[in-house]
Amino acid sequence: MSEKDKNIDREIDERKNEDYIKDTHVEESDEKEIVDQIRGFDEKEVVEQIENLLDQKNYAELKEILTAMNPVDISTVFEEMNDNKIPLLFRLLPKEEAAEVFVEMEADAQELLIRGFSDNELKEVLDELYLDDAVDIVEEMPANVVKRILLNTDSDTRRMINEILKYPDDSAGSIMTIEYVSLRLNMTVSEAIKRIRRTGIDKETIYTCYVTDSSRFLHGAVSIKTLLLADEDDLIKDIMDTNYVSVHTHEDQEDVANKFNKYDLLAIPVVDDENRLVGIVTFDDAIDVMQDEATEDIKKMAAIIPSDKSYFRTTTFETFKARIPWLLLLMVSATFTGSIITSFESALATCTILTAYIPMLMDTGGNSGGQASVTVIRALSLDEIEFGDIFKVIWKEARVALMCGATLAVCNFVKLLVLDRLQVTVALVVCITLVITVFIAKIIGCTLPILAKKIGFDPAVMASPFITTIVDAVSLLVYFRIATMILHI
Amino acid sequence: MSEKDKNIDREIDERKNEDYIKDTHVEESDEKEIVDQIRGFDEKEVVEQIENLLDQKNYAELKEILTAMNPVDISTVFEEMNDNKIPLLFRLLPKEEAAEVFVEMEADAQELLIRGFSDNELKEVLDELYLDDAVDIVEEMPANVVKRILLNTDSDTRRMINEILKYPDDSAGSIMTIEYVSLRLNMTVSEAIKRIRRTGIDKETIYTCYVTDSSRFLHGAVSIKTLLLADEDDLIKDIMDTNYVSVHTHEDQEDVANKFNKYDLLAIPVVDDENRLVGIVTFDDAIDVMQDEATEDIKKMAAIIPSDKSYFRTTTFETFKARIPWLLLLMVSATFTGSIITSFESALATCTILTAYIPMLMDTGGNSGGQASVTVIRALSLDEIEFGDIFKVIWKEARVALMCGATLAVCNFVKLLVLDRLQVTVALVVCITLVITVFIAKIIGCTLPILAKKIGFDPAVMASPFITTIVDAVSLLVYFRIATMILHI
Repeated sequence: MSEKDKNIDREIDERKNEDYIKDTHVEESDEKEIVDQIRGFDEKEVVEQIENLLDQKNYAELKEILTAMNPVDISTVFEEMNDNKIPLLFRLLPKEEAAEVFVEMEADAQELLIRGFSDNELKEVLDELYLDDAVDIVEEMPANVVKRILLNTDSDTRRMINEILKYPDDSAGSIMTIEYVSLRLNMTVSEAIKRIRRTGIDKETIYTCYVTDSSRFLHGAVSIKTLLLADEDDLIKDIMDTNYVSVHTHEDQEDVANKFNKYDLLAIPVVDDENRLVGIVTFDDAIDVMQDEATEDIKKMAAIIPSDKSYFRTTTFETFKARIPWLLLLMVSATFTGSIITSFESALATCTILTAYIPMLMDTGGNSGGQASVTVIRALSLDEIEFGDIFKVIWKEARVALMCGATLAVCNFVKLLVLDRLQVTVALVVCITLVITVFIAKIIGCTLPILAKKIGFDPAVMASPFITTIVDAVSLLVYFRIATMILHI
Repeated sequence: MSEKDKNIDREIDERKNEDYIKDTHVEESDEKEIVDQIRGFDEKEVVEQIENLLDQKNYAELKEILTAMNPVDISTVFEEMNDNKIPLLFRLLPKEEAAEVFVEMEADAQELLIRGFSDNELKEVLDELYLDDAVDIVEEMPANVVKRILLNTDSDTRRMINEILKYPDDSAGSIMTIEYVSLRLNMTVSEAIKRIRRTGIDKETIYTCYVTDSSRFLHGAVSIKTLLLADEDDLIKDIMDTNYVSVHTHEDQEDVANKFNKYDLLAIPVVDDENRLVGIVTFDDAIDVMQDEATEDIKKMAAIIPSDKSYFRTTTFETFKARIPWLLLLMVSATFTGSIITSFESALATCTILTAYIPMLMDTGGNSGGQASVTVIRALSLDEIEFGDIFKVIWKEARVALMCGATLAVCNFVKLLVLDRLQVTVALVVCITLVITVFIAKIIGCTLPILAKKIGFDPAVMASPFITTIVDAVSLLVYFRIATMILHI
């Protein structure tokens, strides 16, 4: 086999040489330079270099550096600069790149720039924006800036911005763009390609084209790959894909993102009740939604009210406001747990050693419930579980709970007898409580998120902190009940 | 303005009519049918229908239904069917669709199918797979199945599969594919499009093409949009983008996913130390990585050892194994908290009311710390925070902690005096402990994940359960210390 392999290797090498023979020869030193340029992007260094050039008023070189950079990196560098330097730097960018950089910037820097723009400059930037980006910006700006933006867009765009703003927050309609390529059923492939060449420059994606008729009814989708690989005279209606996946304007953006993930889409058409095409969502927006939704879930699971802003963009007071409501609520709930202890005060006084195991029982219960709830919450988000599965989930969690509970109880029992030298009866009280607590915790942990989703609540808030508070109370009640039964106190 | 708007509306309508005039007329009933077909995908219904047709041996209609379905949906339906029916159904699929469905199926169903395939059938499916999918399958299968797979691929593919398997798990190299379109510097646009037409059918993406020379050195990237919109005689080297973003073969897949998100990429080139192109990662794989990494982080935060499998694919015993280690470890740690209580037993006996507030203090501390740690862990994952920011983070968390602590303490103080009718001194003990606990919890919560990342640990394990255990002990020590000081017990 190794002989065969060698032959094939040789064959490939020969094919390669043949194929590459017409290449230009590139000097070694050139290569090095390019590699350095690519690998060498160090934010702090670039910021310093740009500031130096600004001080020297060396605008020619500044322009050169900025043109060679990726718009995303430029926006990151701009964010690091002093606010008063951004407008000057921005004006050094070529027109198209300027719009790309503008889109990538944070809302406060965008606002700063818009306030500094002349009407003409503002118009230039707005003309280059895709509609969904324009909508995002309008949503973030204060009223007087929005007014200036709308005054400087043509009435057509203005109408469409207003149209999109009408869709509910977090719906497919609110994140879609209307810059798609539409084709007709009876077009030939070469007509279609011509149409793309003519209109494609203003479209957010040309990679999936949509086949509609005069009433905008969506008949199918055709990818540019299919177009390029098809015969020039083929008709669109013969090569289009009619099993396309679409979303409704009012569908939740999380569902949109899940469809992208499930079907590996580049873009998804957004249709109305009559299956008329009203827009598309592109994969980059879907990726943003996925990351945002994951962050949102994670924050909710940690008893934080989620926001869209990144860590350092959120002010201290905003962070405080996002965290205090749940802390307060959970603190109040935890005092119920305290009152359970108070009501068993006399029992605790007769057998003070019981107090020592309260933290262990509460923590283990909270952790067990948290594991179940978080697993189920994530599975719900990813559409792995639905309401109909509730008994399957409970059955599974019940078995896992018994296995976990038994293991923990056995380990603990040995430890209580050997290390803590407890009486067997007291050790039994602790361990039986442990098994029951873990069992109840897992069952509560897995059912609450599913029930929450069923009644329209966000399952993510049913995570560890919330479950912990419930389980704490349950574990104490079980603890004292079993103690009373076994120890007769 | 409304007059102007109306005019524009009219104009658009006219333009539309003109443009759409050559469309075929589509019957109302046709439309309805299509809409129903698209909207009406109900898994359970389809499974039932297919099972009925199977019982009736109506293979013609079965074939028709399957051909009209999306491969992803077919795989979902297959997963729901009885195992022994899958091979028969699979053979009804057209060859290309069969491979697409195969890729989407779970590993156990894939294994079942492979075991049932003749060598010829296996070869047919393997020929249709992209290399990265083939690698994924090889990674999931048991040794004897892998051997059969490798025996039925040509030596070229076999060598490349082995090549990719050599890259470390979770590295860019391990998730890349080598089916990309490469162009040469001196090609014209029309030559490039011809090349894409000739070779594109086997490429995973044709939407971004890569410009390399005979040594595979990567000079630039060019999108098919640029190609289509450029002049036919333009040279590739003049229109290519040299500010492309690339990743190194050994870069972590999470970084790869973050770059997709940051730069809105469709594909990213994977290069070696000499900037030679060795493969590409496409956006669908990046999306999978993003979702998997988020799920992994979420599970780790809930003290679960993460796995790749979905909820119901994980057996009860696997779920148990994933949860018990942390439960055990945290249970043992929680017993230290218990021993703190024991050592203050006499103090507690003199002032039993103090016991009642232990759960509230521990829970609030745990929740506060959990909020800070989870926020920081997520920000670390999304590259919003790095090690150099540690003091900025601490400074921010310290202020948030004081605000939260003060608010909680004031509310609690009022409640303790008015509702619980405590002595002022005892209420003071509880509230001062609360402020200090929240402060320490937030500081521990925000620093541990950053430090963990610095020393190469996964920051996600430094989440609520771990923090809670530490904070529990801290809060009790503070509580008893302050009680001793103020109440002189």
